[in-house]
Amino acid sequence: MKSVINKKISRHLADSNQDVEDVLTIEEPLEIRVKYHTQHGIHRIMSLAVTMRTPGEDEFLARGFLFTESIIASQSDIVQVDQLEDNIILVTLQDRIQFDAQKLQRNFYTTSSCGVCGKASIESIHSDTIYLPWSSKFTINKAHLYKLPERLRQQQAQFSQTGGIHACALIDSSGNIVLVKEDVGRHNAMDKLIGANEKYPIADCMVLVSGRASFELVQKASKAGIPLMAAIGAPSSLAVQLAEEQGMGLVGFLRNNSFNLYTGQDRII
Amino acid sequence: MKSVINKKISRHLADSNQDVEDVLTIEEPLEIRVKYHTQHGIHRIMSLAVTMRTPGEDEFLARGFLFTESIIASQSDIVQVDQLEDNIILVTLQDRIQFDAQKLQRNFYTTSSCGVCGKASIESIHSDTIYLPWSSKFTINKAHLYKLPERLRQQQAQFSQTGGIHACALIDSSGNIVLVKEDVGRHNAMDKLIGANEKYPIADCMVLVSGRASFELVQKASKAGIPLMAAIGAPSSLAVQLAEEQGMGLVGFLRNNSFNLYTGQDRII
Repeated sequence: MKSVINKKISRHLADSNQDVEDVLTIEEPLEIRVKYHTQHGIHRIMSLAVTMRTPGEDEFLARGFLFTESIIASQSDIVQVDQLEDNIILVTLQDRIQFDAQKLQRNFYTTSSCGVCGKASIESIHSDTIYLPWSSKFTINKAHLYKLPERLRQQQAQFSQTGGIHACALIDSSGNIVLVKEDVGRHNAMDKLIGANEKYPIADCMVLVSGRASFELVQKASKAGIPLMAAIGAPSSLAVQLAEEQGMGLVGFLRNNSFNLYTGQDRII
Repeated sequence: MKSVINKKISRHLADSNQDVEDVLTIEEPLEIRVKYHTQHGIHRIMSLAVTMRTPGEDEFLARGFLFTESIIASQSDIVQVDQLEDNIILVTLQDRIQFDAQKLQRNFYTTSSCGVCGKASIESIHSDTIYLPWSSKFTINKAHLYKLPERLRQQQAQFSQTGGIHACALIDSSGNIVLVKEDVGRHNAMDKLIGANEKYPIADCMVLVSGRASFELVQKASKAGIPLMAAIGAPSSLAVQLAEEQGMGLVGFLRNNSFNLYTGQDRII
């Protein structure tokens, strides 16, 4: 599937216009369906979510989403993933999985860039965590951190074309980029990154995010046990609070010669 | 309510660290409840949405959200708005409003930064529009457009403190900033901006957004009849497509001496 599209646009400069070909990041809805086994021994299919995403790695997105939303506890809870149509994907769960469709029926809908969409109450935002970043021994040298923004830019294939896409990257303790995922929605980039991993916790890598550190990004990363997050942009108050609670280090405003450390002094050498 | 908070952090530079006081944008959940009149003549209260927002103008946020989500057609459909707690707001609808709680009950939940959260199918994303940008005669001089990024920065009170907040601004055809709203979520900033207006369509102003132009931002703005959107960042493919369909002009990568025009040549002089 294509993740960028060309479009003829007009480029305006102070004293001239010209028609040029621009490259746009594709944003399209993906419907994630789940096939599960009911208590009465039959198989049912439920439409679980629609998310606006950049097409291309829908299986990773679906796998990551189901994990970070606590619908599965490991990737082995999934039998198979089928792309039914370009924008519809079906995840078949193991029969042993107790999938509570009732619990997921919500009495309201919501919109936000926060990832707490559809959660029925404020209390439910702190959803249950399986792996705690606390347990990881991960550390990284300051000098490695400074190099990450430039390294990420070099690896962001789509960003260099469109300027309109978020990235999340796994980084090892030597500062090497292990994996990068991009998406028009930053939560999707994080879900793709986590969904591309078969084993949790991801205790031996940190995660770098191209934009700001929101509550939800910290929530998703901490669920996968990732011990340290560094953001090019600012963190929010709740992101810092959750990182502290979960024992995840949090760096913001990462530049090539400076950064802010919000929590997790012992992660940085 | 406070919208920023101070926190002691450590600032790392290449060859030194120092403990400094940083300012964080507050991100907290707001639960929007609706009180409505059923067909059976009784009043019911429903929890409609939880959104992660920056506290401070919750009434505007709730009013804008209800309008851009087509739950109300005008602000006169609302009797009153009561802040029940810091993070809970109650909107009382006129008895004449047919509020279909059933229709809003969704069989799934979702997460995204897209604003189509909770919509039950891909088809439902193009929700019904009341006011079309097509009908506006709004135009703006190129020279005014170039000045907008700098003017917005000057007016972004919170951004200058925290670096971590989105803004949406209404701009008149002379390039003056009429109104600015900020929020940790860009959809909330747009909802606050639209909710602060009592009359629709907003046909005599354009809207400037501090980040990228997503599908949802175009959707919300076009619902309010806003004829032109300019974004500092990139638009997505679907944002451009929707703007074309709705007759809204769309500018991206707005700088002090250049911009890209994706659609709406006749809006620019």
